[in-house]
Amino acid sequence: MLERYGHGGDLTTAAEAYGRQEDEFVDFSSNMNPLGPPEAVRRELVRYAERIAAYPDPAVRRLRAKLAARYGISEEAILAGNGAAELIDLAVRAFRPGTVALPMPSFGEYADAVRKAGGRIIPVPLRPESDFTLDERAFAEAESASSADMLFIGSPNNPTGRLADPSLILKLAERGGIVIVDEAFIDFVPDEERYTLIREAAVRPNLFVIRSMTKFYAVPGIRLGYMVGSPAGLDRLRGLQIPWSVNSLAQRIGEAVLDDAAFAAETHRWLQREKPRLAGKLKQLGMHVYPSDANYLLARLPEAEGLTAASLQREMGRRGVLIRDASRFDGLDGRYCRFAVKLREHNDRLAAALGECLRLFL
Amino acid sequence: MLERYGHGGDLTTAAEAYGRQEDEFVDFSSNMNPLGPPEAVRRELVRYAERIAAYPDPAVRRLRAKLAARYGISEEAILAGNGAAELIDLAVRAFRPGTVALPMPSFGEYADAVRKAGGRIIPVPLRPESDFTLDERAFAEAESASSADMLFIGSPNNPTGRLADPSLILKLAERGGIVIVDEAFIDFVPDEERYTLIREAAVRPNLFVIRSMTKFYAVPGIRLGYMVGSPAGLDRLRGLQIPWSVNSLAQRIGEAVLDDAAFAAETHRWLQREKPRLAGKLKQLGMHVYPSDANYLLARLPEAEGLTAASLQREMGRRGVLIRDASRFDGLDGRYCRFAVKLREHNDRLAAALGECLRLFL
Repeated sequence: MLERYGHGGDLTTAAEAYGRQEDEFVDFSSNMNPLGPPEAVRRELVRYAERIAAYPDPAVRRLRAKLAARYGISEEAILAGNGAAELIDLAVRAFRPGTVALPMPSFGEYADAVRKAGGRIIPVPLRPESDFTLDERAFAEAESASSADMLFIGSPNNPTGRLADPSLILKLAERGGIVIVDEAFIDFVPDEERYTLIREAAVRPNLFVIRSMTKFYAVPGIRLGYMVGSPAGLDRLRGLQIPWSVNSLAQRIGEAVLDDAAFAAETHRWLQREKPRLAGKLKQLGMHVYPSDANYLLARLPEAEGLTAASLQREMGRRGVLIRDASRFDGLDGRYCRFAVKLREHNDRLAAALGECLRLFL
Repeated sequence: MLERYGHGGDLTTAAEAYGRQEDEFVDFSSNMNPLGPPEAVRRELVRYAERIAAYPDPAVRRLRAKLAARYGISEEAILAGNGAAELIDLAVRAFRPGTVALPMPSFGEYADAVRKAGGRIIPVPLRPESDFTLDERAFAEAESASSADMLFIGSPNNPTGRLADPSLILKLAERGGIVIVDEAFIDFVPDEERYTLIREAAVRPNLFVIRSMTKFYAVPGIRLGYMVGSPAGLDRLRGLQIPWSVNSLAQRIGEAVLDDAAFAAETHRWLQREKPRLAGKLKQLGMHVYPSDANYLLARLPEAEGLTAASLQREMGRRGVLIRDASRFDGLDGRYCRFAVKLREHNDRLAAALGECLRLFL
């Protein structure tokens, strides 16, 4: 099982489980931009030898200033973290919600953070028959979800890839309670401007946006995320954060990649080409593929004896191709897989290996 | 004030406060090994470009295996962290002590972690007249310290530089209660083997050792520490730790530097030469210098009108030399400074600048 530690992208476990070297796998189980990292990252790594012997800036001042300028918000409305994962954990610990409404399926760290802090989870089921759309009906159907102390919304949601309607989110925030919008994958949306709630979060007391810089720029090894919200709200998180939580290489890389507009444009062109093409291939293999606004696809396997996401993952892993067993997300059954969209040659290798493995069952 | 965020080594604040570029300062306010980083670090940085696009190993398996082999303990007795700071924070959150005994002065993060978690601090005063020695008398004098739920001991202690007697620590552990020994600077002690409690911590339920890898190898920018203790005890910390807390560059560098025996030997030769030489120069300037087993010196300034650690720090900062205002450690008054031992030429520059500044007051 690739998700031994709860997530995809674990090459060490893959190497142990499938008897190959870590660098021999093509990894569709973690949703990294295959065009990255941008060139600036290599330059920063070389320069970093001169910088590693100094402590990180504990307040992450330069990166926050750059982000503030980019979005036209105050630096005080930005808190950097050791990956988005730290910010999710800090938010729950800082606000100590008794009840937390979570769309299901959604990123498992929301529920883990709530459980660690002793909160109660109120599931908001997303339905396959409506393509996992988060709408008012989903909330209306989930008992007491609208009165929860806290609400997490992934936009785009993981693993479904669906954007949430910003006006719905603002409406939910109006009801009171803390609303945390996880925009870890929103850079992959070409008209991101229409969907991000960063500017609204900077001026509202109970709306927070979490962003990751490691998916779009393909630097998950180094850990970097940030949160946008009211300075008073962020102070509560900052009060719990450990010193030097964000290492200095992450800070430098964050500053270096932020303005790379060419990289962003190229990424959007690649995704526009390859996502529908990969979706088409998966459909040809008999899968049901759900619409996605992100750089990954949620798919349901055809019915066949013994064919589950887990058994398929095992067969694929032996062939050096890693896929995500999405049945491990609460709210999905054993036939869901998630596939990152990669470069064309890799997508073709994915499709070929899937074809080979599916034939074992069909 | 250099310690705006609670610590030394903050070059960004120094640049803002003293109107110079970050790389123009000689920094005696953070206790890094001036011989580092070892050559292996530069090699890892170049290689890391190929690795940054993958997630870190969530379980830090290779580094833990190397550490386990080095100390002859079980891998399960080791937990890696995002710097020692994360492990201090996790320990307090995991064990939720009602009362925590803290030698004063000691590293400020112990008290910060306890305050965040709502615990009560029982100070164990260390006396300048006994050179800040942690002995049984210090504990006997501190009311109810011996019955505290948790106890932190720095060995060597920061900012005093004094090692704690291992047999005293074991005796304190016998009384019950959690004992956490912070050995962040113990690699600088040539006969470390005689003082470290790593092997004892690996097999006792209530004794834990925290180690930092960033001081000795001079890589604080990248954040890396680890804790040794009983697997059951560490599981409680692990349950609260965020995923991918330790970035993959820190993991790789940790693996790469660990076996560099030549670097360690050279470091010990340097410190044996330069520490007494710098102490002598400080004494010539009229300071009282306390004995130190570590790579830094605690000193008390001569009495003079207007001369405080804060005013001296300001004058030194304007001259491009950063020193630690140790009066910010609870238990020390306004005349204490801490100086890292650096390369001879830098130590000489420190002494010259101190002479110049002290003349302003004397």
